[in-house]
Amino acid sequence: MTDPAPGRYGLVDCDVHPIMAGGMTDLRPHLSRGAQRRLGLDDRRNLSTIGHREAVSIPRNMLYVNQAGVLRDDARAPDGSSPGSDPAFTAEQLLDGNGIDRAVLIGGEVLGLGAMPDPDAAAMIASAYNDWLAETWLDADERYRGYLVVGVQDPQQAAAEVRRAGADERFVGVLLPLTNLLMGQRHYYPIYEAAAELGLPIGVHPNSGEGIFRTSPPTAGGTPTYYVEWHTGLSQVFAANVTSLLCHGVFERFPGLKVVITEGGLAWIPDVMWRLDKNVKGLRDEVPWLRRLPSEYLVDHVRFTSQPLPEPRRRAHLHTLLEIVHAERTLMFSSDYPHWDFDDPRHALASLPANVRERMTAQNAIETFGDRL
Amino acid sequence: MTDPAPGRYGLVDCDVHPIMAGGMTDLRPHLSRGAQRRLGLDDRRNLSTIGHREAVSIPRNMLYVNQAGVLRDDARAPDGSSPGSDPAFTAEQLLDGNGIDRAVLIGGEVLGLGAMPDPDAAAMIASAYNDWLAETWLDADERYRGYLVVGVQDPQQAAAEVRRAGADERFVGVLLPLTNLLMGQRHYYPIYEAAAELGLPIGVHPNSGEGIFRTSPPTAGGTPTYYVEWHTGLSQVFAANVTSLLCHGVFERFPGLKVVITEGGLAWIPDVMWRLDKNVKGLRDEVPWLRRLPSEYLVDHVRFTSQPLPEPRRRAHLHTLLEIVHAERTLMFSSDYPHWDFDDPRHALASLPANVRERMTAQNAIETFGDRL
Repeated sequence: MTDPAPGRYGLVDCDVHPIMAGGMTDLRPHLSRGAQRRLGLDDRRNLSTIGHREAVSIPRNMLYVNQAGVLRDDARAPDGSSPGSDPAFTAEQLLDGNGIDRAVLIGGEVLGLGAMPDPDAAAMIASAYNDWLAETWLDADERYRGYLVVGVQDPQQAAAEVRRAGADERFVGVLLPLTNLLMGQRHYYPIYEAAAELGLPIGVHPNSGEGIFRTSPPTAGGTPTYYVEWHTGLSQVFAANVTSLLCHGVFERFPGLKVVITEGGLAWIPDVMWRLDKNVKGLRDEVPWLRRLPSEYLVDHVRFTSQPLPEPRRRAHLHTLLEIVHAERTLMFSSDYPHWDFDDPRHALASLPANVRERMTAQNAIETFGDRL
Repeated sequence: MTDPAPGRYGLVDCDVHPIMAGGMTDLRPHLSRGAQRRLGLDDRRNLSTIGHREAVSIPRNMLYVNQAGVLRDDARAPDGSSPGSDPAFTAEQLLDGNGIDRAVLIGGEVLGLGAMPDPDAAAMIASAYNDWLAETWLDADERYRGYLVVGVQDPQQAAAEVRRAGADERFVGVLLPLTNLLMGQRHYYPIYEAAAELGLPIGVHPNSGEGIFRTSPPTAGGTPTYYVEWHTGLSQVFAANVTSLLCHGVFERFPGLKVVITEGGLAWIPDVMWRLDKNVKGLRDEVPWLRRLPSEYLVDHVRFTSQPLPEPRRRAHLHTLLEIVHAERTLMFSSDYPHWDFDDPRHALASLPANVRERMTAQNAIETFGDRL
């Protein structure tokens, strides 16, 4: 892959959520009659009731509820549809309003696919969703790009979907809806292989494995009690998955692979880098495939989106953190539109040192997502 | 409690492990005949075989094994007993050898008590262990102090043990062998109440809830594969428990309580402070009992021991971390003798700025453990 010209874009937003206005019924046109019946989405069913209780639904986080809601109410188009569900309105409000040249779309509703017990249902929904995203959003504005999503339960089927949906070059990454298997496990390698083959980074995002889980708590030590507690503890999920990727030597096996941690925060990274570098020195026999320090793989292969940016009282502490994590190479701007904790680029960028701001606004995204962006 | 005179000691080691030379049989003299029978430790049984397979044993971490062993072989007394099992030899090697005035003993074998399904067995073992520690170690050298241990499964019984064993003022803290219940949960409040009443800090240490677990993985997102991965991820357990303590408002309810995170590392703390302070601002309704920022409670009530000290390549990064976590108030020296990753005070202290070193060598421990130290 040739390196895209630097300075091609001024601002790339790496975390924008398209919402399905009609819920699961939006997927109907993208499912065969057989798949519709299989999922309970065929027209035998009246799915006009809210929640679509009778159909298969994608599991979602129902244990930790933000009482204020998670969508910005001002992201609602004039027709009154759900916030974030109108591609044209989003283009106007978010992209025109903030001078954003490219927005990378991450399906919010499909993050729970990894929690479905049925691998075939997850795979059918993933394919239909990818087609829906292409026709509804990617066709609507040339500034949109997207992550294609896969059902991780069946890695061979997921790899096939990467190759099928990935033929559309407006898909710039592969969204992995996490399940209770850490990312370094061999289970995922067919998916990584397909992604690396197409030059697509793997993306993860909160509210998949750690928001919707089956038998065990998503974070360490026990089950969190409150939304604020669960949300604060999200870092643990990303720390665990990055540690898993590094220990299993995934980046030795797939040297071209990049992983994008979206909305995972930043302040947990030094702990992983320092502990793992130190531990590997004493425990090398367990992970003989590592030829460099774990932190070196991290800086070369793992990327982080900016929202939510840490907000220490002293800006100098943020700047030291950015230096430790090599943010000038690893950080990419994101707004998380239309979510409640949206980061406005005008404010978020102002707190950053010039050398970081310069590359995180667009250049790091261009290098991560490649020509397709 | 009056504040002890500053400068009373030069160096206090907050994490030293006494080993039971004879394993569970060492507890026999401290158990009634009935309790011996109940635990399978009575003399009907020949317990001379290694592992004591027929008796009740305290669960230990058997999933994540350090291939090099966890005990320093040079901590073995001339008689050939287990490393760390001879109070006089430890006093000579560790205390005399390093100018340590007080060593706070933390039972290594009892860390798994929280994983026992039977609350009464855990409570019997805890009481016997506390008596063993007093007679075998605290009597052996006046520089030894100890954590008393409790079985957390029955909080009322544990609170009674805090008051019983805590009558011996050489016990300076309460060791909580974690189970799969986060530390903020109301379950623990009778224990906290008793500890606060006696002015004893609550201590936690790795290899309890996160090393020995029943049905769910100890860390986030799935089950770690390797020892190096599990050990790196220990931070998650402490992040989760500190977040739990802060969200549940434990320090509003028990204003005199201190919690000591032993061997938990430091680099994960800024993430918890920053995320939680930010989140609480937007989600105050869930935790209305918080009257200050979570990070303020943390700095006032939570203490950290130094080993393993983070080792970034640039010392300035360590110094910024120490500034963020207010190490001059929150950090206490520890060596983790006789474990494999022992921190030698001569080296560990040298990397610290003077204002931190000055108070972490002894003064912060004196203020945390109080007059009993």
